Amino acid sequence: MRFQVHDVNLSSGGPLIVIINKQDASKLDILPLSRLKIKKENNSITVVADIAEDSQIKPGKIGFFEEVLTKLNLKDKDYIDVELEERPKSIDYIKKKLKGSKLSFQEINTIIKDIVQNRLSEIEITYFVSACYTNKLTLDESVSLTKAIVANGNQLHLNKKIVVDKHSVSGVPGNRTTMIVVPILAAAGLVVPKTSSRAISSASGTADTMEVLAPVNLTIKQIKNVVEKTNACMVWGGALELASADDKIIKIERPLSLDPEGILLSSILAKKKAVNATHVLIDIPYGKEAKIESKTRALNLKKKFMAVSKKIGLKVKVVLTKTNQNIGNGIGPALEARDVMNVLAGKGPQDLRKKSLFLANEILKMVGQKPIATQLLDSGKALGKMLEIIKAQGGEINYNIELAQYKINIKSHKPGKIVSISNNAIAHLARIAGAPEDKQAGLYIYVNLKDKVKKGQLLFTIYTSNLEKLNFIKESLKDLEVMKISQ
Amino acid sequence: MRFQVHDVNLSSGGPLIVIINKQDASKLDILPLSRLKIKKENNSITVVADIAEDSQIKPGKIGFFEEVLTKLNLKDKDYIDVELEERPKSIDYIKKKLKGSKLSFQEINTIIKDIVQNRLSEIEITYFVSACYTNKLTLDESVSLTKAIVANGNQLHLNKKIVVDKHSVSGVPGNRTTMIVVPILAAAGLVVPKTSSRAISSASGTADTMEVLAPVNLTIKQIKNVVEKTNACMVWGGALELASADDKIIKIERPLSLDPEGILLSSILAKKKAVNATHVLIDIPYGKEAKIESKTRALNLKKKFMAVSKKIGLKVKVVLTKTNQNIGNGIGPALEARDVMNVLAGKGPQDLRKKSLFLANEILKMVGQKPIATQLLDSGKALGKMLEIIKAQGGEINYNIELAQYKINIKSHKPGKIVSISNNAIAHLARIAGAPEDKQAGLYIYVNLKDKVKKGQLLFTIYTSNLEKLNFIKESLKDLEVMKISQ
Repeated sequence: MRFQVHDVNLSSGGPLIVIINKQDASKLDILPLSRLKIKKENNSITVVADIAEDSQIKPGKIGFFEEVLTKLNLKDKDYIDVELEERPKSIDYIKKKLKGSKLSFQEINTIIKDIVQNRLSEIEITYFVSACYTNKLTLDESVSLTKAIVANGNQLHLNKKIVVDKHSVSGVPGNRTTMIVVPILAAAGLVVPKTSSRAISSASGTADTMEVLAPVNLTIKQIKNVVEKTNACMVWGGALELASADDKIIKIERPLSLDPEGILLSSILAKKKAVNATHVLIDIPYGKEAKIESKTRALNLKKKFMAVSKKIGLKVKVVLTKTNQNIGNGIGPALEARDVMNVLAGKGPQDLRKKSLFLANEILKMVGQKPIATQLLDSGKALGKMLEIIKAQGGEINYNIELAQYKINIKSHKPGKIVSISNNAIAHLARIAGAPEDKQAGLYIYVNLKDKVKKGQLLFTIYTSNLEKLNFIKESLKDLEVMKISQ
Repeated sequence: MRFQVHDVNLSSGGPLIVIINKQDASKLDILPLSRLKIKKENNSITVVADIAEDSQIKPGKIGFFEEVLTKLNLKDKDYIDVELEERPKSIDYIKKKLKGSKLSFQEINTIIKDIVQNRLSEIEITYFVSACYTNKLTLDESVSLTKAIVANGNQLHLNKKIVVDKHSVSGVPGNRTTMIVVPILAAAGLVVPKTSSRAISSASGTADTMEVLAPVNLTIKQIKNVVEKTNACMVWGGALELASADDKIIKIERPLSLDPEGILLSSILAKKKAVNATHVLIDIPYGKEAKIESKTRALNLKKKFMAVSKKIGLKVKVVLTKTNQNIGNGIGPALEARDVMNVLAGKGPQDLRKKSLFLANEILKMVGQKPIATQLLDSGKALGKMLEIIKAQGGEINYNIELAQYKINIKSHKPGKIVSISNNAIAHLARIAGAPEDKQAGLYIYVNLKDKVKKGQLLFTIYTSNLEKLNFIKESLKDLEVMKISQ
């Protein structure tokens, strides 16, 4: 049937959606969320149908979101043909997984391809994420998912014999070791094309923190240039579409702050494969305040990382790092960037320095080099490399990182010993203060676990750029136990 | 922050969504799918935020879907205030269930309330459906869910001492016993305010079939009138919002044709409570071709129905009916309505007649009456009652039910015996022929299981009103085994 295009002047944020009048839908037997094939001359795409009342889309018209217009190069008032289409096979595979069955590579690859090509609605992707969360993925499924993500994304193609990479399974505020480890390794002559993510439910991701110092939305060509010049880069992975299924899945995970282990595993390893990494160090922080609470679960995850990486031809070493509190003092992009630059300059939080040196040495040993991370740091070579990278990515060298203008100082209301610091409460506070979108917002924490504090001693400062938020933050503080202090 | 309303002239189909400019979102630290409070004078509602580029929604403006405009009585260019809001508690409860924990009544009620009030996005409702599907619901949770659906919906308030009702757990094409049982019971003087659903993934629901004969979208007031006049009604439950969480959940279930048992159970019983039923007969068809395949599963479901109904004070009897094929000959609204009227007139498919009489007698016995269903049917009293009900609901008496104009006759390609008839294939064929939206589309089946057929004997006819579909149907037939015929 022939329809006239009506540009609704909105984007759907991904999924290819059209809106069709109720009468037309009934005539063609189109149900909400059923599939249509839109044809314009020799091009055609499959879209998801939404049904509207007469007042919104007139009969004979079809409402197009920007994504569909762009894809078919259409404009308002063009004519197109519409045909009913059967639902994609990937939906049957998602249902199969939801029922608890195992999926083949072919089936998983079809799901990932359809996600990447915007053929699945958000409801359908949600069922997939749910199924992976509640029914877990087997080893074979994780291998398949990893391969599928690589196959349906871009790749760097660096043509280097040894390419190293690292990854911290996050969940620990302030854990910005990457931005110290990468310059150390690059200073040692290793190639480290590091891509990082932005925060999902934390106060800042490495990409958010690095963005305080330099642009991180680089193209693949720009990255190759930066790596050619400096041996390394620190960019946002999302811009590269190395694993473009990932971003769509992350959007679905966000409302519930979910992070299914199987998807986590595959999405991390796929991104390493996509940058052509040969040797990868994976850091699993565990402990009461980390994303992975118990050592047993950390060991279990380690085993899975080793098993999957072996099957996809990646040399992986996994280290478990016990974590009872945040690492570094700053929480939030600018506050963390300041900690990082301080460590590189030979100062800064000692826990962040120590952990970064440990991780850097582990990677040096993996590729047969001497563990000389401390020398590279203390000699200023790592700092020099960091400045090179910042410049190569298009950043400006700025020794004064600005913080948000409004502050709330939180002091101890009694003398005692700090017996716990809640990472959840820290991340939550930093986020309601504005992090990570407000780069300068967040927390600065002055004390560590087991420190003795006096009554009235400063515990932490909250930074925000938004005056309106001050009251909201103060209200929220009443319900939050950020630190527990014993008498 | 103050914004100006921009009417995007679209409805979201339920969820309360607004669209905010990227710059504004960043300023206020609004993430996609985060919650905003929209205030206009003394009214305020919570909505879900979507983020748009400058070209779509200008900074300082906020795009409103119709649902939000209506709810706050706003129009284009009005000014409103926007505040960030924390995510609803219901999301934490959904995550809890997804993790496999048990939910309390309070928690389930909060989820259902938020679904009914459009406070949850479709992604979030999908997680809830998924969790109920993969992690099942306990008896207590089913009781809670039933009570929550009743508490958050409308009720009939009939003030009758005895109100009877029936329900068939569907999945069997053509199983239109309700439309025969209800007039029989009403003719026996019983009060039967029957609400039915429309098809989700089948060729027709009872409401779709009844709509061929009379309007089914009645208000609560109209229903009370019809019941007052005739003792009974047969209407679409969706229009009444007896269980309004239900329709939103059904929309989410449709893309994967899911139907989690726990939700099924509660939504059936809640609708019975909402019409003030005191005695309910539940028919569970089971067999290779039914939704419930094994007798064990049917017995298990029976046990759950008994357990939950006992806890909510409903007298329930469950009968298991073995089913190896469709019931009646017609599949699709008009074709089924014709079968029903024929049975009421003393003719029609014998299997449909027999099963309806059995169910009617079971209900008569439940309330202490004599099992005189056959008399009521054969005397024409049930037909007379049916015509009364059709008229009371605003339908016209029409002895000639029209079918779709295009036909495909399918004949046996060899002599033999019919050893199976696939209900899935039947429903699929009827749907691609246009049912249930095209009332006159569907299948008419001439043969029964175990019948001997000759080569060239007519097996079934496919009806469609849409000429364009003929080829598509013929193509689909190649991949479908509707009937298996042994030599």
